[in-house]
Amino acid sequence: MRDHSLLQSLFDRKSVRAFTDRPVPDEIRHLIIDAGIQAPSAGNQQLYTILDIDDQAIKDRLAELCDHQPFVARAPFVLVFLADTRRWLDAYRAAGLAVRDPGPGDLLLACADALIAAQNMVAAASLLGLGSCYIGDVLENREEMTELLGLDPLVLPVTLLVFGYPAPEQAARAKPPRPRREYLVQKNRYTPRTGAELRALHGELNPGEDYDSWMAAFCERKYMSGFAREMNRSAGEYLKAFYSAPGP
Amino acid sequence: MRDHSLLQSLFDRKSVRAFTDRPVPDEIRHLIIDAGIQAPSAGNQQLYTILDIDDQAIKDRLAELCDHQPFVARAPFVLVFLADTRRWLDAYRAAGLAVRDPGPGDLLLACADALIAAQNMVAAASLLGLGSCYIGDVLENREEMTELLGLDPLVLPVTLLVFGYPAPEQAARAKPPRPRREYLVQKNRYTPRTGAELRALHGELNPGEDYDSWMAAFCERKYMSGFAREMNRSAGEYLKAFYSAPGP
Repeated sequence: MRDHSLLQSLFDRKSVRAFTDRPVPDEIRHLIIDAGIQAPSAGNQQLYTILDIDDQAIKDRLAELCDHQPFVARAPFVLVFLADTRRWLDAYRAAGLAVRDPGPGDLLLACADALIAAQNMVAAASLLGLGSCYIGDVLENREEMTELLGLDPLVLPVTLLVFGYPAPEQAARAKPPRPRREYLVQKNRYTPRTGAELRALHGELNPGEDYDSWMAAFCERKYMSGFAREMNRSAGEYLKAFYSAPGP
Repeated sequence: MRDHSLLQSLFDRKSVRAFTDRPVPDEIRHLIIDAGIQAPSAGNQQLYTILDIDDQAIKDRLAELCDHQPFVARAPFVLVFLADTRRWLDAYRAAGLAVRDPGPGDLLLACADALIAAQNMVAAASLLGLGSCYIGDVLENREEMTELLGLDPLVLPVTLLVFGYPAPEQAARAKPPRPRREYLVQKNRYTPRTGAELRALHGELNPGEDYDSWMAAFCERKYMSGFAREMNRSAGEYLKAFYSAPGP
């Protein structure tokens, strides 16, 4: 009943960004995709569509639009996860029903369905010996992304996954350490962390590093960066289609 | 390398809503939580906080606020997943940095981190013999939920998971069938489904059922229901805190 070897694979999985030339056979692609489709889903509705990107020109463009990450174009197996609030709407309308527009709750449920399916695929890929990497940057550049992927205003790319057989140097790379659970889990109610707690967490993960200067560099590279600002602009544009939904 | 028996657990997992009285030992709780913390996370930032709900009065209230589902109150192990766009902001500010407000992109990344961690926990729980169920309804009733869980305006409950040892009738229940991948995966570009495709999908999953009447009942029970409207209202209120983020 208690199988620690799969558990271990959930613990050991780390992002892989460089792949060998070994192709990913259709049988393996299908197993990975099917593991995702079997994941939990709100009301068993699968509020997502997955784009399987096998057109090299589209991969090349995705690599550019996702904050210029060339490894996306070199990955043998690339999936874009679309939160799809349109498919069921179309299904209702095909039955002649008059329905409300999707709202922000529908969108968040659809994002959840897509991400839960994605993580089942990551777990399946690990077991099959494939590496994977999430690309959250697919949220950027809404206008070009919409054109490239033929998106509908009610369909939003919530994440992108690349898969492939890990290049040797990737297999050898150490997994970046995670915080201990004491820093991420609280009992019953949310409590903001104190400065002392945040410094202690940082100290455990980055021994010997000065808090203030490390945090300044990290903040500049991540939170205040051009790509983060672009992601917020672009996500804000996607969300506009969901603001106008009527209340109860 | 290729272990299909382990893969099988990703395929077989189904929602479990009734649990035996058998308690979940701390060792098992910790394994499940740690599997989630080891999941992929944008920039290794873990943009979430997990609330471990062991106060029965809070469980009881959560069961009510999550669309009146009493089994939530009876589950031995209950976790609320908060998309937390505040923790890093506090960390930057503790270093004396002046930073922008979080925007919709930050929020969606945080939701992704939380959901990816949640699904690793679901996979770990399955392997350990525990059942689980997602409760998306935790998005409802923002005002009461904020009060109950002490939420910050920058912290949003994106999902809730209950875990426990499955009651015998749950173990015997058949898993609802999923669509074949042909209905959920498209090549390279998004294409809305035709009415004929949607009818074919429905026919495969619900053999012998009349499309129009099945869809009318489902739409009324799910999409046009009070809880769906409340979820959209409530999610819209949560999202307001993220609209005002400046562009690039």
